[in-house]
Amino acid sequence: MFNLLKLSNLSTKKILNLTYLNLVKYSSFKEPQKSINPKKIEEKIKKTIQFFIENDLPDKNLENQVSDLKKSIKSQGDLLRNLKSDPNVQKEKIIQAIKELNSRQFQFRQKIEKYLNIVEEPEKFDVDNFESLLKERFFYDQSFSAYGGVSGLFDLGPLGCSIQNNLINELKKHFVLRDRMLQVDCSILTPEIVLKASGHLAKFSDIMVKDTQTNEPYRVDHLLKSEIEKLTKTSKNNSEFNEILKKIENSQLIEINEIDEIIKKFNIKSPKNNVLSSASPFNLMFKTEIGSKGHTGFMRPETAQGIFLNFKRLYDFNQKKLPLIVAQIGKSFRNEISPKSGLIRQREFLMAEIEHFVDPEKKNQNYEKFNQVENFKVNILSEEAQLNSKSFRKISLKEAIDENVIKSETIAYYIGRINQFCINSGIDSEKIRFRQHLNNEMAHYANECWDLECLTSYGWIECAGIADRSDFDLKQHSNFSGLKLQAERMNKIENSKESFVPHVIEPSFGIGRIMYTTLEHNYKIRPKSTKRFLSLPYHIAPYKCNILPLNESDEKLKPFISIISDLLINSEISHRIDDNSGAIGRRYWRSDECGIPYALTIDYETLNDNTVTVRDRDTTEQFRIKIEDIPSIIKQLGQDKNLWQKFKKN
Amino acid sequence: MFNLLKLSNLSTKKILNLTYLNLVKYSSFKEPQKSINPKKIEEKIKKTIQFFIENDLPDKNLENQVSDLKKSIKSQGDLLRNLKSDPNVQKEKIIQAIKELNSRQFQFRQKIEKYLNIVEEPEKFDVDNFESLLKERFFYDQSFSAYGGVSGLFDLGPLGCSIQNNLINELKKHFVLRDRMLQVDCSILTPEIVLKASGHLAKFSDIMVKDTQTNEPYRVDHLLKSEIEKLTKTSKNNSEFNEILKKIENSQLIEINEIDEIIKKFNIKSPKNNVLSSASPFNLMFKTEIGSKGHTGFMRPETAQGIFLNFKRLYDFNQKKLPLIVAQIGKSFRNEISPKSGLIRQREFLMAEIEHFVDPEKKNQNYEKFNQVENFKVNILSEEAQLNSKSFRKISLKEAIDENVIKSETIAYYIGRINQFCINSGIDSEKIRFRQHLNNEMAHYANECWDLECLTSYGWIECAGIADRSDFDLKQHSNFSGLKLQAERMNKIENSKESFVPHVIEPSFGIGRIMYTTLEHNYKIRPKSTKRFLSLPYHIAPYKCNILPLNESDEKLKPFISIISDLLINSEISHRIDDNSGAIGRRYWRSDECGIPYALTIDYETLNDNTVTVRDRDTTEQFRIKIEDIPSIIKQLGQDKNLWQKFKKN
Repeated sequence: MFNLLKLSNLSTKKILNLTYLNLVKYSSFKEPQKSINPKKIEEKIKKTIQFFIENDLPDKNLENQVSDLKKSIKSQGDLLRNLKSDPNVQKEKIIQAIKELNSRQFQFRQKIEKYLNIVEEPEKFDVDNFESLLKERFFYDQSFSAYGGVSGLFDLGPLGCSIQNNLINELKKHFVLRDRMLQVDCSILTPEIVLKASGHLAKFSDIMVKDTQTNEPYRVDHLLKSEIEKLTKTSKNNSEFNEILKKIENSQLIEINEIDEIIKKFNIKSPKNNVLSSASPFNLMFKTEIGSKGHTGFMRPETAQGIFLNFKRLYDFNQKKLPLIVAQIGKSFRNEISPKSGLIRQREFLMAEIEHFVDPEKKNQNYEKFNQVENFKVNILSEEAQLNSKSFRKISLKEAIDENVIKSETIAYYIGRINQFCINSGIDSEKIRFRQHLNNEMAHYANECWDLECLTSYGWIECAGIADRSDFDLKQHSNFSGLKLQAERMNKIENSKESFVPHVIEPSFGIGRIMYTTLEHNYKIRPKSTKRFLSLPYHIAPYKCNILPLNESDEKLKPFISIISDLLINSEISHRIDDNSGAIGRRYWRSDECGIPYALTIDYETLNDNTVTVRDRDTTEQFRIKIEDIPSIIKQLGQDKNLWQKFKKN
Repeated sequence: MFNLLKLSNLSTKKILNLTYLNLVKYSSFKEPQKSINPKKIEEKIKKTIQFFIENDLPDKNLENQVSDLKKSIKSQGDLLRNLKSDPNVQKEKIIQAIKELNSRQFQFRQKIEKYLNIVEEPEKFDVDNFESLLKERFFYDQSFSAYGGVSGLFDLGPLGCSIQNNLINELKKHFVLRDRMLQVDCSILTPEIVLKASGHLAKFSDIMVKDTQTNEPYRVDHLLKSEIEKLTKTSKNNSEFNEILKKIENSQLIEINEIDEIIKKFNIKSPKNNVLSSASPFNLMFKTEIGSKGHTGFMRPETAQGIFLNFKRLYDFNQKKLPLIVAQIGKSFRNEISPKSGLIRQREFLMAEIEHFVDPEKKNQNYEKFNQVENFKVNILSEEAQLNSKSFRKISLKEAIDENVIKSETIAYYIGRINQFCINSGIDSEKIRFRQHLNNEMAHYANECWDLECLTSYGWIECAGIADRSDFDLKQHSNFSGLKLQAERMNKIENSKESFVPHVIEPSFGIGRIMYTTLEHNYKIRPKSTKRFLSLPYHIAPYKCNILPLNESDEKLKPFISIISDLLINSEISHRIDDNSGAIGRRYWRSDECGIPYALTIDYETLNDNTVTVRDRDTTEQFRIKIEDIPSIIKQLGQDKNLWQKFKKN
């Protein structure tokens, strides 16, 4: 919320700026209050954008960057008005012009929002402090750092590994158990032919240039973007640059020749001011040789191919019934050119994929399980909203289907289930949105795509996705292998069996990104203090409790440690023992930083009455419980935190 | 058991032969009965071996193969007698001679036992039938078989994947939870320097030759062994051949030049009778490039290195205390030259490793947890027993420590815990032995090693191991990285802190091999029938129950399927639904083949009284239970099968 006291010092434009910030926050992050009409807010935002288009922006640099775009919006507006006033113009041409205007306005709005840090950093968040906690407590850290480290590779320490295990367990319960999916575990090593058929060999690449002096590689899109943005600041005629930037943003810059020409024409150098090599595609798969006969193989870039190749076995296992729902959790590999951004961009990452095979004739019909989720309210950012510069809307999945925003009940079902999974895993429900892919950003195999995006200090990041891969993969493998990967159904007219290629809808999850988001959303600082803690949900927390003897050197207290530990082990409750020297407050603080929900303190009263104090991580409240009741009370609290007050009174 | 009726037709030698077979069986596989003295059996075996040494063997081919060895045993016996009769000879020389005699006799015994199929195939087991079951029900199958398959790579289907998940859960409960180990998850991709330091780059290889026509690669030891054994059959002067065979068996044939000479001298050809290439070492690691700058990396051949490299972070996490016990479960990769033997020899395999870091001064002292296992009786095959041609002994771990057969209580502790884990996982306790490594077979980093071997249709296979890796790895990485990987302790004399390099004891597990053994040991055929079933323990079984409507097409029965399924889901009990058409007996049979412990049948009584029948997979017994009691009864039966009779009566 902006500070009214400081407003008096600001220019009108700055005030507008701040107002805009708040408007966007209102419309995006909070449950709209009854007194506030979201449509009116959206209108106000549009008016503010319009004002920015028509007037100079407060920041001159920004104004320079967007001035050409502003001109092109104005000229497109003029064109549209002319077309509308001409009775002989075809309707299609007008629609085309509207789309173009929307697209330009959308670009402009994106730039403004980025400038105002709305998209990337909507809230002040102390990333350094947060990441130092993760490092100090060894949630995870860079792999091989004794040898200088390898970027994009991370080791999970005990806390990170436990959280990952818990997330996997929740995935298995929430999806595999509940929907009786078939879980499989296929090979990571993959022969070349498979990835030729899947299209990864030809299309799974980024374009790269190298610094000819240092040999440092750069992703062309990242490099050109930053270098050309620099050029726009010093140049007056920016229309050509804007054209290039637009192509980069829409992933349209894929011709090697064109890239080489741009580099030559504008004399673009590396960030170290050296000459660049010519551009070349760099396939993102790790290549190796299987056996000693030179058979090329790759580390899989996704787990899905293993499922497609086993389609026949799995269809048989499912007694030749559709839908056939298969899940896989495992590592995949992408040889990113120069990965940064920590757990968000890893070269080796744990993912989960679900392949939901369905008869294409039934794909867009009712899905029997949809009624389980139809009333869930979810933040939906449709393609149409993006093209019309709108924000996301919180609507029920039933509304989304009724309005044809989501085309398939099966996709809507998974959107609801994934949303629930993320909230259960401790992700802030207000920082989740499902964003529909624009037509030009979909993967080579996909038809309709939705990304689950979470708002973090890295901006909105994709943590899961749902793609309609149609029959692309099964058809490709049928063509390449000669085996028919097909299902059978009754032909209603002839009353005979007929074969067909099923379609597949694929929810997929990046476990590392979900874990990162959970950690960030649960990072807290105690009021009026610098003490950090992680408010992780019980079932995600790395250990469920921590046994602390008040005085570590007192031999009288020691026997209680193993009594309590054995009780917890027999109830399968994971726990730590912190019997280090040091004040109890210090050890509570350490326990809180590890995200352990409950601390059990053995003190001198324990000797008299066999009780310990149990302390809640989030509230720091305490009460005493009998040692023999520990497992049952901890388990019940794990199921329902609200029981705390009841137990405390007893 | 041999058939007395047929004995009359056999020669004395054949009878001796069969007797021997039974003697070995008695001493190895059965709990010794009171009337049978194992020492006497071992003596009888020795006498039989002695008879075989002194007389011609029943099979002329075998006699040819071992005749040189027999001669060398006789001459060594003569030498020993001479030495013993000479009062001036040093005691050491006599001990040396005894060792050599024992070693030759051991070689001979091994050959005989192999010939008699005692080592490889102790019991008739229908491998084909068993493996066809695994394939038909898709427990696992070869990867990429649509494209011809890749040997050494396997995909786990729904049943295999569930069993693997269950084994991982049991490992985590049995080891990680109970011993409060720190579990980590480190990168698979590993830069070259790490594997240079660990010794894998130089030493983790097999020697290979290629058929110069077909380019087919062969492991030199495997090829020379079979080709030279052929030559011994046609040649009269076998002493040189036996020398080579002995070297191969003792892994002493490692000089490339020597191998090339042998191939040349005896004109050894490929199995397809083509000229062989010269020999070359073939490193068993999969190589790749990380990033685009040509940095060589490998897929890790073991998970352990990730733990060693994180030693400092983990030691800090453990509050600078030893023992520090770290576990990791993950995939490792070995590029076997030409893998056969199914799940036993995979190029990509799931393993678990535990690194138990300990102060070397305390390594061979008492371990506080040893009393938890000291009375466990375990089959122990010591180095001494192997050199003296003895079989394994079932002794308590306390005896093994007292007799100094196992040197360290920590190793003994893990032997006891691993033994228990395997038995809990459904492995036949009579088919488990712990075999000590002979001095010349230990890995380059190891000091004392024990393998857990299980008897299967592939012979005794290594399923787990415990190695004392001493301070090898930490020292190597300290030297290569320049970082001191050390711990601290109080110096008792000076009362000051001193640094030292901890030693590490490493239990490791091949999950695929444990799974295979569990499946084989639980494969059963119903008496007087051909019906197969898998008697997997409840917590290992892929699904806990199977819901079967008696008549799949009857709409009245259908609602009960989802009622029961929802009850099971809410209790987190995994299950299948078999609502296919087909007689109920057929579906029971299918359920049994999948190893599902309980079948729940919905029939017409269900409509009247809300009960179903529950059927036990192993006994096929049935009784009726109320639908609402299903989760509780299934869970209790899962804990204790013996409750069946109690529930049946109620």
